Amino acid sequence: MDPLDAPTHRLWALRIEYDGRPFIGWQRQSPRGERRDAAGGDGGKPSVQEVLEAAAACLDGGVPPASTVAGRTDSGVHATGQVVHLALPAQFSAHAVREALNFHLKPHPVVVLDAALAPDGFNARFSATGRRYRYTILNRRPRPALEEGRVWHVRHPLDADAMAQAASLLLGRHDFSTFRAASCQASSPVRTLDRLAVTRTGEHLTIEAAARSFLHHQVRNMVGSLSFVGLGRWSVAEFARAFAAADRRAGGPTAPPDGLVLTGVAYDPDPFAGR
Amino acid sequence: MDPLDAPTHRLWALRIEYDGRPFIGWQRQSPRGERRDAAGGDGGKPSVQEVLEAAAACLDGGVPPASTVAGRTDSGVHATGQVVHLALPAQFSAHAVREALNFHLKPHPVVVLDAALAPDGFNARFSATGRRYRYTILNRRPRPALEEGRVWHVRHPLDADAMAQAASLLLGRHDFSTFRAASCQASSPVRTLDRLAVTRTGEHLTIEAAARSFLHHQVRNMVGSLSFVGLGRWSVAEFARAFAAADRRAGGPTAPPDGLVLTGVAYDPDPFAGR
Repeated sequence: MDPLDAPTHRLWALRIEYDGRPFIGWQRQSPRGERRDAAGGDGGKPSVQEVLEAAAACLDGGVPPASTVAGRTDSGVHATGQVVHLALPAQFSAHAVREALNFHLKPHPVVVLDAALAPDGFNARFSATGRRYRYTILNRRPRPALEEGRVWHVRHPLDADAMAQAASLLLGRHDFSTFRAASCQASSPVRTLDRLAVTRTGEHLTIEAAARSFLHHQVRNMVGSLSFVGLGRWSVAEFARAFAAADRRAGGPTAPPDGLVLTGVAYDPDPFAGR
Repeated sequence: MDPLDAPTHRLWALRIEYDGRPFIGWQRQSPRGERRDAAGGDGGKPSVQEVLEAAAACLDGGVPPASTVAGRTDSGVHATGQVVHLALPAQFSAHAVREALNFHLKPHPVVVLDAALAPDGFNARFSATGRRYRYTILNRRPRPALEEGRVWHVRHPLDADAMAQAASLLLGRHDFSTFRAASCQASSPVRTLDRLAVTRTGEHLTIEAAARSFLHHQVRNMVGSLSFVGLGRWSVAEFARAFAAADRRAGGPTAPPDGLVLTGVAYDPDPFAGR
């Protein structure tokens, strides 16, 4: 029985934060209800989804609800503003949902920042009107000691101004096939990029990206190709040609997941407004 | 033989960064030359000093040099701008010193950011004219998922303006006994505090402290007492009375090490100037 049909359940929108390092990514790997053991096929790493659904099961007599997420982050990718929806027994208040889930999520590095009753027809994935990501590069010779796993370490000096100039060419509606993973399941490679800003603060380069939606690996592939411009391996014109080729083989490398954070998802109406 | 007497050695100043979590603190716990095994009396955690001296020993035929540090950080306290001096064989360039030490420091979360020949008479501890620390509080109800070990998590709302007002009372030359650890070995409790700024950015409170030198636990004890003001447990007047008492028993709690970072040490002349 779909819990949404039962008057005993209500649909919640959750805003969550997680450290992507100990997870194989957002998505549950095994069929629902099957438990992988710690020596399973994924190197023993759980998915964020499994951990969240297991915590939610503790609120519903041991039955894990199916959850739907705004951005299916890959292994090692972090989130400070991921959004998910799922159904929970109707008796819980927003405060109780957040506190109970956070209690059961321990000791995993996943927390519910906010819980709100979902507006009519809300779907964390399909109702999203915008997604924001931040990518951080540590650009210095010595490896990171304090930020290991949170940044992409690039040893050679990057020209942030040239990268910003190249990034501006990607704004607007385009075919992003050059930055699309082979595994991408989207029906079209056309996306509209609203923001792609490259800024330097000391040893850190920050790339902020915003769009209604992204292709699989799009941010990491854009950052990888921008790094070629920053290193002087590509001129801005060569970057433009690679983009115009609309062919992944023309693009640069895929930047590692470490530096990537899903910082926010926009909805209209915003279920978390005024909270 | 003191390697400083040998013309085969030169004195280096190193600027280093480390994650304090896997260490018992800066200071070597065992007598030099004695190796503690992993089941030793300190829970098996090495000190940053031991790890650095072991890496330096690889550059000098296995003999670890004695190192002197600007700020003897406690267990769990981080550094982005710690400074240390030690003697190394004369043949190495600054580039080689940094690269070779960083090679041998792997996989510990300790890196040498910069190496410079020490000016005549330089002592990392006694030549320092200023030390800067940053303390970060995550002030929200849910625990940290991404910043675990890097912040002090305070669940109840803190009034940053009241904390800033209380902090300003500590500026200048005073008896800081209220914020001095019982274990402190300094001959006098009098210090001159040059800066103690409290600022809020969203969920984060940052406390920046600068002085020629600090007493043991002084920053963490100041932050702990400021948190009482932020929580409304103390008025600014009560904070002032606790400070004036010049008695540790009048002070608030010691804030945990997690949020503390030694961000920089000043020298005149600066061995790293122009680098």
